[in-house]
Amino acid sequence: MTGDGPAPRAPRVALIVEHDFDEGQVQQVCEALRAADLEVVVVGPVAGTEYRGLAGAVVTAELAAARARMTDFDGLVIPGGHAPDRMRLRHAIVDLVREAIAAGKPVAAIGHGPQLLISANAVRGRAITCWPSIAIDVKNAGGLYADRPLLEDGPLLTARKSDDVPALAAALVRRLAPRGT
Amino acid sequence: MTGDGPAPRAPRVALIVEHDFDEGQVQQVCEALRAADLEVVVVGPVAGTEYRGLAGAVVTAELAAARARMTDFDGLVIPGGHAPDRMRLRHAIVDLVREAIAAGKPVAAIGHGPQLLISANAVRGRAITCWPSIAIDVKNAGGLYADRPLLEDGPLLTARKSDDVPALAAALVRRLAPRGT
Repeated sequence: MTGDGPAPRAPRVALIVEHDFDEGQVQQVCEALRAADLEVVVVGPVAGTEYRGLAGAVVTAELAAARARMTDFDGLVIPGGHAPDRMRLRHAIVDLVREAIAAGKPVAAIGHGPQLLISANAVRGRAITCWPSIAIDVKNAGGLYADRPLLEDGPLLTARKSDDVPALAAALVRRLAPRGT
Repeated sequence: MTGDGPAPRAPRVALIVEHDFDEGQVQQVCEALRAADLEVVVVGPVAGTEYRGLAGAVVTAELAAARARMTDFDGLVIPGGHAPDRMRLRHAIVDLVREAIAAGKPVAAIGHGPQLLISANAVRGRAITCWPSIAIDVKNAGGLYADRPLLEDGPLLTARKSDDVPALAAALVRRLAPRGT
């Protein structure tokens, strides 16, 4: 969207996909991050595979989760929809989330995205928001659930739904953008 | 499928539906229960409304969950798919599950169905099986998860997926059918 960033390398975010992702969320977050000169890399179970969204649009994974290393990324985004339900069963994806959190790198999760945070054992004692159907699962996992557009706690940034994505993306950009755009 | 049952009234099962139910599971369970002379009543959020399955087939709710009373039913079936994620947000459906369990009436849940059992606070200390993605949520809710085709514990009957439905339906029929067909 713009030229090369001012930094030696632009901050790089891994956007995790699986089938049944929420297209609106993926599109919004990609546009917002790229507009702020962040690089977005689509990471999925299998590189080169097309993953279809809830409404039928497809994105192609550029990198397999099993080959992704958080040393190459500055943050992680987990979109919502029913994709997180599938991601939970992918060990490489769960491991990538764990690796990001262990490295203290920001992990942003939207809607059902915190299901993956539960599977990565990352919610205990953390303030978390999410789609309301999984609030009980977040609480049972030891998370401190609240119904807010955006919650930030340590490495975790969470949002409830598509309407909250602009605030979530802005928070992620504040943490990562070279000039704090 | 057959004529009137031999009992004064045939045992009656409420099959709960919401959008994104698993069609194969609903079809299999309906056929098996009706073949054993059980009456199946489709209960949904709004009576007379069509609910669409994951593959696009529709079923019409005959009765609204808010008007269903477990005194009129002998058991409850919760199909899988992404419908349970929606059912969790319907207070009348959660209440109906609670009412069935309080009355000691069998509640059968397939795949993601135990998500609704979690929301009804019904899994603590119970042996439960389910679709693997939600096993961690069952465990965090105090359920005793095991990867088995069928588990029965108190009023709860649970199965992992479509392949397990025949065993689940047979177990429900054993509990409810007049002649233990």
